[in-house]
Amino acid sequence: MISPGSTLRAVREGKPLIHQITNYVVMNETANATLALGALPVMAHAGEEVEEMARIASSLVLNIGTLSEHWIEAMLLAGGAANARRIPVVLDPVGVGATTYRTETAKRILDLVDVTVLRGNAGEIATLVGADAEVRGVESISTGMKPAELAREAARSLGVIASVTGPVDHVSDGERVLAVANGHELLSTVTGTGCMSSAMTGCFLAGKPDEPLEAAAEALAAFGVAAEDAAIDAGGPGTFHALLYDALYALDPDSLDGRAHITEL
Amino acid sequence: MISPGSTLRAVREGKPLIHQITNYVVMNETANATLALGALPVMAHAGEEVEEMARIASSLVLNIGTLSEHWIEAMLLAGGAANARRIPVVLDPVGVGATTYRTETAKRILDLVDVTVLRGNAGEIATLVGADAEVRGVESISTGMKPAELAREAARSLGVIASVTGPVDHVSDGERVLAVANGHELLSTVTGTGCMSSAMTGCFLAGKPDEPLEAAAEALAAFGVAAEDAAIDAGGPGTFHALLYDALYALDPDSLDGRAHITEL
Amino acid sequence: MISPGSTLRAVREGKPLIHQITNYVVMNETANATLALGALPVMAHAGEEVEEMARIASSLVLNIGTLSEHWIEAMLLAGGAANARRIPVVLDPVGVGATTYRTETAKRILDLVDVTVLRGNAGEIATLVGADAEVRGVESISTGMKPAELAREAARSLGVIASVTGPVDHVSDGERVLAVANGHELLSTVTGTGCMSSAMTGCFLAGKPDEPLEAAAEALAAFGVAAEDAAIDAGGPGTFHALLYDALYALDPDSLDGRAHITEL
Repeated sequence: MISPGSTLRAVREGKPLIHQITNYVVMNETANATLALGALPVMAHAGEEVEEMARIASSLVLNIGTLSEHWIEAMLLAGGAANARRIPVVLDPVGVGATTYRTETAKRILDLVDVTVLRGNAGEIATLVGADAEVRGVESISTGMKPAELAREAARSLGVIASVTGPVDHVSDGERVLAVANGHELLSTVTGTGCMSSAMTGCFLAGKPDEPLEAAAEALAAFGVAAEDAAIDAGGPGTFHALLYDALYALDPDSLDGRAHITEL
Repeated sequence: MISPGSTLRAVREGKPLIHQITNYVVMNETANATLALGALPVMAHAGEEVEEMARIASSLVLNIGTLSEHWIEAMLLAGGAANARRIPVVLDPVGVGATTYRTETAKRILDLVDVTVLRGNAGEIATLVGADAEVRGVESISTGMKPAELAREAARSLGVIASVTGPVDHVSDGERVLAVANGHELLSTVTGTGCMSSAMTGCFLAGKPDEPLEAAAEALAAFGVAAEDAAIDAGGPGTFHALLYDALYALDPDSLDGRAHITEL
Repeated sequence: MISPGSTLRAVREGKPLIHQITNYVVMNETANATLALGALPVMAHAGEEVEEMARIASSLVLNIGTLSEHWIEAMLLAGGAANARRIPVVLDPVGVGATTYRTETAKRILDLVDVTVLRGNAGEIATLVGADAEVRGVESISTGMKPAELAREAARSLGVIASVTGPVDHVSDGERVLAVANGHELLSTVTGTGCMSSAMTGCFLAGKPDEPLEAAAEALAAFGVAAEDAAIDAGGPGTFHALLYDALYALDPDSLDGRAHITEL
């Protein structure tokens, strides 16, 4: 059953530990978003400790935004430990399609780790299913498929829940497709808001591990509602960014279900 | 003599260089806190330069929040250079108790470097003295000792000034224990505020190198007073975070002694 | 012709990709400044992908604020790819003069890469031309040359456009010297504002690649005007920092030429 408010309540009560191996650019931001929502972030990437850390975590978020070999190996180790414990794994394929290295790394992780939710923009996800896509740096410019189709196709061919974010987000398990129509255009003016939505996905999966399709859509709705709240008093990207943490912290579980625009297509 | 106002004045007049080898998550934040207080931060971790940098610094802050071998080696090199010059060294054992790698790294640094102040939460410090502790990621959940005892015991057994932060902070040299009752609960909603308090400790040690027990307590009091000021207009974690730098910058040396709640137990 | 408004308009229309290999401390901040201005940042440092990324970018910004060997090699590879495509390259020699490693690394990059604009503070640039300089950490304390002379001399001897920032900025191609008198003293209370001005230089070079002297001066004027706007409602470094992104986003191309104080000496 879709109820972002109930899942948010479960997150805040359980305070799950969300292990994140993410890029240098957004580490502080995704940790703060996790903390503001009510979960506990931990950022650890050393090969010597990632398996142990993943074993005490409630979900694992892998993000390839800034890559190097040691980090990829750590992601594979942590992913293996998470799979062994059957905790959810989120993969954010930042910049896939922009360079061969990113595309191949994302494919390598998808091959070797059982990824629960793949959260990316349309260009990144399209690249991974072999569809036409233009990615400039870490921005999706255009794709040859409609996002709902793309989400369904990615879920089927990659064996994941595909979470394709954009003006309207589309989340699919290969059969069902949920569309999420929350958010605000200021999100695209702050770096790392996509990465934050992946972190939020990790939090919601920890709060509702048995219904990953619903949890993934609820995370995007909750994050979108927070963005709508933050935009009210924002004067631009900088104040919006600060207010976004305030809004995540203030998210009201009681009104969240009514404000979330999640529809099944 | 305890006088955070006088030490703050000394920091702002001397503009000491605070060399920080810290984690990726909070680098920007601890640098900004250092700068807002009135000292000069420098972040440098390359083995090729850390000794030279430590030789021009007034204190050194080591933080193991995100680890890897090269960084540990750099911390040991910088620590050696700092010890040779007899400048104060702060160690922040982030996440000790959560993984073996962190615990062993902190012990290795404590073995090889003469640490002036060990600044951590109760779970981290308890782990280092072998007491019962539960650490979830980088959060202290519970410990088997009261914090005042814990600070005294850690100071004695580890040969450091122990600075144990929490709702009330406790700082001890093994004989005396100073309790610091400043701060605000919003501090726990922003990642890296513990790391910032370690950076503040480095600044205050640079301003009062001959009285490290007092300096360590004063740093926590000053940081806590700034948090109290920041909380006044904060709407949540994001605006609190921005206002915290404003408050550090605006800290008034003349009124600080009166606002600091430092008591000897 | 000097017209920061026209160049800003070109940047916003073209949305050029600005490839940045920069330090850990400011990655988020320079990415956000780039995005707020209207360009697209991408941060990528892996040897495996930097050449491919530089080949789709419109300019490349190299910043040595936190160094290690792998990163230097990546900078050299990316610089080579940028030179082969004749896109502009900005070098920010953070902390040169503070340690030998930084000074030698900056010289090595200047030797091996055709740098379009060298953007640094007076102490850093003076060190590179062999003039007297005192650099404490990453702060310029004093130099033996006046900044206009220094900019001209650096441009001549290093074969670059030299962009020396300070209370008044000086930009020279070795013949002409442009002085830029915009900005606000709060800039010096936030870490990474120098790095941001290098990122802005990368954006303006992408918008006006054929007139790099003018573009470099225009970037500093635009950034300075944004700082002036941000300072109006700022209560200190933290709120100034947030408002700076709002101000970059809100920069008005129509009024920018009138507000920019760029004079030829």
